Amino acid sequence: MENFQMRTDLALEARESITEADSELRGVRVEEYDLEEEDIHVTKVMIDTKNAAKAMGKPMGIYVTMEAPAMVEPDDGYHREISCCLAQEILELLPGAEQEQSILVVGLGNREVTADALGPQVVDNLFITRHIVKEYGKAAYNCERMNQISALEPGVMAKTGMETAEIVKGVVAETEPDALIVIDALAARSTKRLNRTIQITNTGIQPGSGVGNHRNALTQESLGVPVIAIGIPTVVDAATIVNDALEKLLEEEKSLAGARFKERQKLSFAELNNMYMTGKDIDAVIKRVSFTVSEGINIAIGENLMA
Amino acid sequence: MENFQMRTDLALEARESITEADSELRGVRVEEYDLEEEDIHVTKVMIDTKNAAKAMGKPMGIYVTMEAPAMVEPDDGYHREISCCLAQEILELLPGAEQEQSILVVGLGNREVTADALGPQVVDNLFITRHIVKEYGKAAYNCERMNQISALEPGVMAKTGMETAEIVKGVVAETEPDALIVIDALAARSTKRLNRTIQITNTGIQPGSGVGNHRNALTQESLGVPVIAIGIPTVVDAATIVNDALEKLLEEEKSLAGARFKERQKLSFAELNNMYMTGKDIDAVIKRVSFTVSEGINIAIGENLMA
Amino acid sequence: MENFQMRTDLALEARESITEADSELRGVRVEEYDLEEEDIHVTKVMIDTKNAAKAMGKPMGIYVTMEAPAMVEPDDGYHREISCCLAQEILELLPGAEQEQSILVVGLGNREVTADALGPQVVDNLFITRHIVKEYGKAAYNCERMNQISALEPGVMAKTGMETAEIVKGVVAETEPDALIVIDALAARSTKRLNRTIQITNTGIQPGSGVGNHRNALTQESLGVPVIAIGIPTVVDAATIVNDALEKLLEEEKSLAGARFKERQKLSFAELNNMYMTGKDIDAVIKRVSFTVSEGINIAIGENLMA
Amino acid sequence: MENFQMRTDLALEARESITEADSELRGVRVEEYDLEEEDIHVTKVMIDTKNAAKAMGKPMGIYVTMEAPAMVEPDDGYHREISCCLAQEILELLPGAEQEQSILVVGLGNREVTADALGPQVVDNLFITRHIVKEYGKAAYNCERMNQISALEPGVMAKTGMETAEIVKGVVAETEPDALIVIDALAARSTKRLNRTIQITNTGIQPGSGVGNHRNALTQESLGVPVIAIGIPTVVDAATIVNDALEKLLEEEKSLAGARFKERQKLSFAELNNMYMTGKDIDAVIKRVSFTVSEGINIAIGENLMA
Repeated sequence: MENFQMRTDLALEARESITEADSELRGVRVEEYDLEEEDIHVTKVMIDTKNAAKAMGKPMGIYVTMEAPAMVEPDDGYHREISCCLAQEILELLPGAEQEQSILVVGLGNREVTADALGPQVVDNLFITRHIVKEYGKAAYNCERMNQISALEPGVMAKTGMETAEIVKGVVAETEPDALIVIDALAARSTKRLNRTIQITNTGIQPGSGVGNHRNALTQESLGVPVIAIGIPTVVDAATIVNDALEKLLEEEKSLAGARFKERQKLSFAELNNMYMTGKDIDAVIKRVSFTVSEGINIAIGENLMA
Repeated sequence: MENFQMRTDLALEARESITEADSELRGVRVEEYDLEEEDIHVTKVMIDTKNAAKAMGKPMGIYVTMEAPAMVEPDDGYHREISCCLAQEILELLPGAEQEQSILVVGLGNREVTADALGPQVVDNLFITRHIVKEYGKAAYNCERMNQISALEPGVMAKTGMETAEIVKGVVAETEPDALIVIDALAARSTKRLNRTIQITNTGIQPGSGVGNHRNALTQESLGVPVIAIGIPTVVDAATIVNDALEKLLEEEKSLAGARFKERQKLSFAELNNMYMTGKDIDAVIKRVSFTVSEGINIAIGENLMA
Repeated sequence: MENFQMRTDLALEARESITEADSELRGVRVEEYDLEEEDIHVTKVMIDTKNAAKAMGKPMGIYVTMEAPAMVEPDDGYHREISCCLAQEILELLPGAEQEQSILVVGLGNREVTADALGPQVVDNLFITRHIVKEYGKAAYNCERMNQISALEPGVMAKTGMETAEIVKGVVAETEPDALIVIDALAARSTKRLNRTIQITNTGIQPGSGVGNHRNALTQESLGVPVIAIGIPTVVDAATIVNDALEKLLEEEKSLAGARFKERQKLSFAELNNMYMTGKDIDAVIKRVSFTVSEGINIAIGENLMA
Repeated sequence: MENFQMRTDLALEARESITEADSELRGVRVEEYDLEEEDIHVTKVMIDTKNAAKAMGKPMGIYVTMEAPAMVEPDDGYHREISCCLAQEILELLPGAEQEQSILVVGLGNREVTADALGPQVVDNLFITRHIVKEYGKAAYNCERMNQISALEPGVMAKTGMETAEIVKGVVAETEPDALIVIDALAARSTKRLNRTIQITNTGIQPGSGVGNHRNALTQESLGVPVIAIGIPTVVDAATIVNDALEKLLEEEKSLAGARFKERQKLSFAELNNMYMTGKDIDAVIKRVSFTVSEGINIAIGENLMA
């Protein structure tokens, strides 16, 4: 498996794919707890060393995963209990959250592709305050503290001709926020995590393998301010799922292993390249979970500051 | 394999899946020709008998498949050459096309799910005339002949609470068109046909296995007027593609056959049920091919009637 | 003013435009009350006789107007207090609301024109149950009573080539609901009522002058089942507002009256025909009030039936 | 009239509002010509001096107005003849158009408000090349010259919390284009120009009165590179049109002049503030004219460079 690029964005899955022998990996700490009333299972993976980062294929930092099975179900209040838990986790990862801040929320993805529209739809429901505070002061909200919230939907390269990172860097340099919150739809390895898991991390967004200083990264290193990334797996990479199915088969049928299998695998990849798999009700799901996330952000940095 | 429901909407693929021994199937005629300048390969499958319909898993009728590899590529004129070819095929299948007619175009699918938005997007670009002709006569268009074109986007059951067929039947009974053209996104068995194949058939739409008089059918039998269905495969069913990959593997590794395999297959189906696979640029593709189809319809029944 | 078509959809405004002398008009009863905590002023105009209907330019029936100034303001809970009040008024006008019913909600208007998108956006947020109850019975909702809710977005004639009434009639005949709730954006005479008034009436929708049996009406008379219409004024007719401004001027400057004025008025109408006036933040307003209305309907006929 | 802010974005109208006595205004040159076959009337207003700029209420520069009545009519080819004429005018105003350039197209406005969606919809149909040329070189297009086209939809302040100019400045600083083309919907003074006039200017965008170095300007002065602005009037300011109607009345009825009139005018303004007037078919119009503009840009800086 060494040379095979793991096609997952979830740190939880990266960890699961490590074999038993690695399970006590040095430099990786794991904490887990349940919010029983809300039926949410929280896992925190802390990658503390460069070696651990390399082994995990994920940069050093904190990865919080909230598994909330209820999130896929319709709910009158858009699962406010999940939004509240998300708000709590955001505040723990956001440096200086106890002071007034200027926060730029970036909604990544493509509004026109349903499964990739999480970022744009989250941005649609945010409580935007920066222009009001700048024009009238926080008195406009009749409160003593008010964060300045701004939001950006940079679009995708096929439509802008620009890297997302170029657009975000330029806007950060010009508007000088204290921190970024970046929202993106993720790819999971397994269909069972789709749309019911939220990952929050303080490592930002690392395109591709995720280790190293990539020119397209949205990280504290590249932008100069803390970057909290919030993601929900909404798709499964098509090549991954076929590969996983074949591999399960192989585990039982040792006779198939070897060169022929690897060749076949590459063939299936060629055909499935640039394809993804998602659920038939993805429009209703994205509408719902985007609201849960935007409310989480509103609670964390918007509304709860009102006197 | 007898009891395994073929999950494909393309008659061409249904035929391909028939083994060599069946290839000279009685009651099925096949014609093929190339439009060389336009780089379009046309296959006509004519299913003439009930027995052949049963063997093919498709109702009796004519299935025209246009394979046009250029369709996935951007083009200034939205591939007008493909639209013209499509118009020709529509006119051949549409009874009474030489007379003035009232035609209702129905755009099936879900506008909010990109890969399923073909029908609604085709309807967006049609040249609608029925209300003008009814109000002012065809003189409004300064021509001697003018079809009355109307269009309906019935939506999907999860959002309407009604079967598509209920809505269409009601509107047909009230507005009494001479014929229907129904547009839908299809599922292909193979990724290589995605977005580059147009199927036109005079059998209408048959949900599920496609044989028999289903309450949800949109057919001449259920609606009382001819129904031409136009479809483009935009997705691959997720379970199908995994199944196909496994099967190829099996062909070479006979040892794996038997009970264990079938069980595993069912497991993978349970997980992949209600999932589909599509390309990452599906928004640009749907925008383009929907225009090609709507222009084909406009040429066939709209614009070419102008004096 | 007799021959001048009043261009307003609000019964409240129709009544206001009647002069002092007419104010005790026979056959018209008016009730008013305030919901103080919710800051909602409710006016019920009951037109009981044909003569009164003629004088008012509105068909016989009950017109409830809820004036809720808070509705234009953002609110975390989408003004649930207004939704609750709306639900109450719907239930009072809906015959047989105490029994299980099948109700079709029709969202009129054009999704692509922001100020006219109220109906389509209300339909987007409804709790649709008909298909579930028909397939699995009300047991699916774990309750003893469950209305069957269905919804239709018929679109506008320029895009369908069909009258809205044709589409609705066909779907009603095929799916046989017990009652209709029809949602539409209205035109007000005055900008001060925009987006903060909800009108609920049991007279359905009467295009044009509103009296008589019009072929495009959506009424109990034309459809055979009760029709509750819910409307919110989102635009002011451009010609109306210019006319009103001129008239105010005239009241004080008697010298201007007479033939010349009327001629000028017609000129301004020619230019302003087919134009409307609306606010610059109409997108945010429609998004918000459509949610308030859909929640009102959900409370009235959807959710409150759960055991 | 001195103290009354002219609420128009069209230089042509600014000029028309200057009285006879000023018509030979020094520092303003006007050229007019007709493209007879295409039925387009072109007016070039060149404001050469600061005094003239002050008198006109418009910055120094060149303002080209194309009056094309056909633009409001449907057309199979989306009025390619108008696109070609627009391309010609763009190339005349764009410095260095004979060399390979990197051009950023900015689509101003609010996608969710139909009459304000011109900019975003133009951007949707552009031929974006920057990312391809940067990754693969111009060889990717099999041509000797290829401009690098990028595009940005900055959104509106109510949704981003940032000034449009902040976002654009940041992106310009980071991606360093050679020139900008900025698209915006304009307000006209008269309904007769709506949707049939294109204004192209090399002065960029000046919010408000348009003279002086405003922090929100998108100009060569503020951005450091040439800025071509393309606008189409899609709305009439509501207060303007009422004011104009009253004024026409006044011209004939001198008795009304004076203090009372001015007061009344202010009252009507208070009510009409933040309102605009537009046509009922604005969705179809914007869809059409945005395509005409995007094709004009594609011809000017995209497609015509192909070998």
